[in-house]
Amino acid sequence: MGENDDGDIIEHHVEEEMEKRGAASSAFVENLTEAPSSTQSSHRLLAYSDALISIIATVMILPVAHTKVENSEELAESVQLLLTKKIAVYLMTFLIVTVAWAAHIRLFQVIVRIDDCLALLNLACMMLITFLPYTFSLMATFPEHILGILLFCGCVMVLGLIQSLIVLYAFSRPFLLNEQIQISENQTFYKHHILKVIMRVPIMCFFASIFSFIFFQLSYVLLAIVIFLPYISQSLKWCRNKAIGQVEETPDSMMFYTYLPNEPLSKERVEAFSDGVYAIVATLLILDICEDNVPDPSVVQKQFGGSLVAALRAYGPEYLAYFGSFATVGLLWFVHHSLFLHVTKATRVMGLMNTLSLAFVGGLPLAYQLTHEFPRNSRNELEAVQISCGIIFFAGIFQLALWVVALYNERETLHPYVRYGGREHVFMLAKLALYPCVALGTFFLTCILSKFSADIFHVMEITVPFAFLVLRLLVRGGLALLRLLFCPDRNDMRSVVEEDEARVPFNPLDT
Amino acid sequence: MGENDDGDIIEHHVEEEMEKRGAASSAFVENLTEAPSSTQSSHRLLAYSDALISIIATVMILPVAHTKVENSEELAESVQLLLTKKIAVYLMTFLIVTVAWAAHIRLFQVIVRIDDCLALLNLACMMLITFLPYTFSLMATFPEHILGILLFCGCVMVLGLIQSLIVLYAFSRPFLLNEQIQISENQTFYKHHILKVIMRVPIMCFFASIFSFIFFQLSYVLLAIVIFLPYISQSLKWCRNKAIGQVEETPDSMMFYTYLPNEPLSKERVEAFSDGVYAIVATLLILDICEDNVPDPSVVQKQFGGSLVAALRAYGPEYLAYFGSFATVGLLWFVHHSLFLHVTKATRVMGLMNTLSLAFVGGLPLAYQLTHEFPRNSRNELEAVQISCGIIFFAGIFQLALWVVALYNERETLHPYVRYGGREHVFMLAKLALYPCVALGTFFLTCILSKFSADIFHVMEITVPFAFLVLRLLVRGGLALLRLLFCPDRNDMRSVVEEDEARVPFNPLDT
Repeated sequence: MGENDDGDIIEHHVEEEMEKRGAASSAFVENLTEAPSSTQSSHRLLAYSDALISIIATVMILPVAHTKVENSEELAESVQLLLTKKIAVYLMTFLIVTVAWAAHIRLFQVIVRIDDCLALLNLACMMLITFLPYTFSLMATFPEHILGILLFCGCVMVLGLIQSLIVLYAFSRPFLLNEQIQISENQTFYKHHILKVIMRVPIMCFFASIFSFIFFQLSYVLLAIVIFLPYISQSLKWCRNKAIGQVEETPDSMMFYTYLPNEPLSKERVEAFSDGVYAIVATLLILDICEDNVPDPSVVQKQFGGSLVAALRAYGPEYLAYFGSFATVGLLWFVHHSLFLHVTKATRVMGLMNTLSLAFVGGLPLAYQLTHEFPRNSRNELEAVQISCGIIFFAGIFQLALWVVALYNERETLHPYVRYGGREHVFMLAKLALYPCVALGTFFLTCILSKFSADIFHVMEITVPFAFLVLRLLVRGGLALLRLLFCPDRNDMRSVVEEDEARVPFNPLDT
Repeated sequence: MGENDDGDIIEHHVEEEMEKRGAASSAFVENLTEAPSSTQSSHRLLAYSDALISIIATVMILPVAHTKVENSEELAESVQLLLTKKIAVYLMTFLIVTVAWAAHIRLFQVIVRIDDCLALLNLACMMLITFLPYTFSLMATFPEHILGILLFCGCVMVLGLIQSLIVLYAFSRPFLLNEQIQISENQTFYKHHILKVIMRVPIMCFFASIFSFIFFQLSYVLLAIVIFLPYISQSLKWCRNKAIGQVEETPDSMMFYTYLPNEPLSKERVEAFSDGVYAIVATLLILDICEDNVPDPSVVQKQFGGSLVAALRAYGPEYLAYFGSFATVGLLWFVHHSLFLHVTKATRVMGLMNTLSLAFVGGLPLAYQLTHEFPRNSRNELEAVQISCGIIFFAGIFQLALWVVALYNERETLHPYVRYGGREHVFMLAKLALYPCVALGTFFLTCILSKFSADIFHVMEITVPFAFLVLRLLVRGGLALLRLLFCPDRNDMRSVVEEDEARVPFNPLDT
C-alpha cells in the first residue's frame, strides 16, 4: 500500500467509525448525503476472504496428520513416505494459496470500495481458490497423469479471467478505485498494467497445460516457476541489496510484481491471515479428540467392565498432547501478536518470513498426532518428539527472522520501543528467542536422555507458558546483572528510573 | 457496549490509525510519550478469540456429517437416530459456546486494553472453551455416567475462576478498564457486581456436580437452565415488551445479565464471529472432498483400466454438491454482509436471531453430505433434498427475522436507507427473502415432482447466484410495475430521479 493509499484507507476507516459513533449518539440525524448504500467499504469482505484463504491453506495438513503410521515400521521410513507425497502437497498448497492471497491483497489495494457485483465476483474467486488443494492432491496421487495439471491450470485460468473481470468492472466505475488512481490522468495505463500483471500467471498455466500433452515434466517445471519465482526473486533481490547496498530501482522493475510503487503488504491483512491459521490449527486438535477419543459404550462395557474412567485413562497421553499443543499454538500466536503490535509496516520479505513461520505452525497437528500415538520409550516416540521439536523450532526461528529483517529497516517498519536501543528491544528479543531456544534445548536433551524423551517434551510444553509470565522479570534481572557486572556505578539509578517509566499507564483520559 | 464506551473504543481505533499514518509518513518522529508498549489495544486479541470460538462452535457438525447412513435403512429412521444424539450435541455445543462467547464480549467491554498477562489468561480461557465440546460428546455417549457432567462442570468452574482472576487483575490496574468505570467513583461496586455475574454460572455448575452424585437427572435440568435461561428470559422479555408496550426497566433488572446498562452486543464482534462460522463451514466441504475423493491408484488400475477420468466421473455428484453448497454458504454470507452494512447497533434479540441463523448455517455440511451420498431417485435422496431445503430455509428465515426485529427499533439499530420507506428498504427485503422463498419453493416442487428432486435442487443452487445479480433490476422493475398499475401519472419522473441519485458515486475526494 502506498503511503497516500494508506492514508486513504485510514480515512475510510475513520469515516466509518465517525459514522458509527454519530449513529449511536444521535440516531435521529438522517444523514442521507454520505455513503450511498450501493457502494460499501471492502473491510469485511477482505476479512472474510482472509479467513477462508487461511483455513484452506492450513487444512491440507489433515490428510498428512491422519495418515496412519504403522508402529511396526521404523518411523523414519514412514515419515519419508509421507514426505514424498502428502507433506509436499501440504507445502505446495500452502505456498500456492499464499501466492493467491498476495495477489488478492494487491488487487484490493487498487479497489478500495466494493458493490454487490464485486462481492459476488469475489465469492466466485474464493470458490476456485478453495478448489486448488484438490487439484494438488490429484497431481500428487497421479503424478504421471495430466488430468491434475489440466484441472489446476483450468482453475488458475478461470481465476485470472474473473480477476480481469473485477478489474474491468472497477475501472468502469472509478469511484471504487483508490484515490491515487482515481485522480490519476492515465487510468487506462494503470488498467492495462494491472491486467498484464494479473494475466501473467494464467498465461503461464495455459502454456503448462499445452506442454502437458507433449512432455508433462516440463509442465511441472513451469508450475514450480509460477509458485516459487516471486519468493526466489524477492530473496535474491534482498540478498543483493544487502551485499552491494541499496540499488536505486527503476519504477518499471518495481512494478513487475506490484501495481503501485513502494507498496508494502497490508499489515491488517497479514494479521488477519495469521490469526486464521493459528485459530484453525488450535481447533483441528480438539476436532480429532472429539471424533476419535469418545469410546464406544459396548467397548467400555466389555473391555473395562463398565468403568468409563478406566476407558478414558487409555487416552491420557492424548489429552496431555492436546493441552501441550494448544499451549504451543497459543503462545506462538502470542509472540506473533506481541511482535506485530510494534510493526508499523510489513514489507514483502517480512511477509515471506511470516508465511514460512505459518507453514510450520500448520504442521503442529502432525506433531500432535505423532507424539501421542506411539508406545512409551519406543524409538518411534523419540523420533516423533524430535520432529515436533524441529517443527516448533522452525516456526519460532522464522518469527525471529521476521524481526531481524524488520530491524534492517527499523525506521520504516518498527515502533521506536523495539528498535535497537529501544526500551522493549531486549524484552522482544527474549520473547522471540524463547521458543527456538527451548525447542533446541529439548531436542538435544532428548538425544542425551533418550529414555525420558516424552516426559521432557511434556514438561517443556507445560512450563513454557509460565516462562512467558516471568519473562519480563527475568529480562529485567538479567539486564540489571549485566549492568552490575560491567558498569556497576553508573547505571544503577537509571534502571530504577526506567522501571518507573515502564510502569506509567497509558491513560487515554486527556479529554 | 454503552454509548460512552463505544466512543471510547472508537477513540482508541482512531488513535491507532493516526499513529500508523504518522509512523508511515514521518517515521523519524520518535514519539515516546504515547502508548507505552506494556499495554495494548485488545482489538486483535478479540478477533483471534472470535475466530477460535466460532470454529469450535461449528466443527461439532463434523461428527454428525461423518456418520455413515446405511443406504438399506430408511433415511427417516437414521436421521431420527442422529437427531437423538449427535445433532443434539452439535446444537448444545453451539449454544453453550455462544453463551461463553457472549460472556467474553461482556468481559472485554469492561476491559478495553490488555497487557501480556491478560493475553495469557485469555488464552487459558480459550483452551478451556475448546475443551467443552468433548465433555458434551462424553455426556451424549454416556448419558447415565456422571463423568461427563463432572468434567463439564469442572471446566466451567475453572473458566469462572480464570475470568474472576482477569477481573481482579484488571481492576488492580484501572488504566486497562473502560473509561466509564475508570472515572467512576464506586469501582469497588462495579468489581463486586461483575464478579457476582461471572460466578453465577460456575456456582450453578458446582451444585449440578454435587447433585450428580445423588440424582443425576437433576444435574441435566440445572445445566439446561444455565444454557437456555438467557435466551428464554430474553425472548420472554421481548414478547412482553411487544405485547404490553415498553416497560420502564429498573437498572437492577437490566444488570442481571449485563455489566453496563443499555449495553448492546459489539457489532464488530458479531460480524467477526459470523465470518468465522461462514468461513469454516465453506472450507469443511472441500476438506471432505480432499480426504475422500482422491481415488487410490491401485483401484483406478483395477476397476477403471487406468482411466482416471472414468474413476473421477463416479464422484460427479460430489463436485456438484460441493459447488452448490459453497455457493449457498457464500450467498448466505453475502446476505448477512449486506444486512450488517446497514445495522448500526446489534441488540441482544438480534444477536439471538443471528445465533439461530448461524446454527442452521453450521448444519449445511450435513446437507452436503446427505445430498450426494444416496443413489439417484431413491426415497432417501428425496428426503435428503428436503432436509437440505429445510436447513437453508431456516438459515434464511432467521436472517429475515433479525431484520424484522431490527425494524422494530429502526431509529436505533438501522441506517436510514433500509428503514421503512428508505431507498434500499425493498431491495434489502428482496435479498433477505430470496433464500427462504427459493428453499420453500424447492421443497414443494420436490414433493410434487419427486422424480426430479436432486435435479431441481442443483438447478436451484446454481441459479440463485444469478438471481442475486439481477435482483436489483428485478426489484426496480417490480416497483416500476407497481407504480404503473396503481398511480401511473405521478411517480414516473420520480423513479428516474431516484435512479440517478442511486448512481451518484460516493466520492471521498473532498480534500
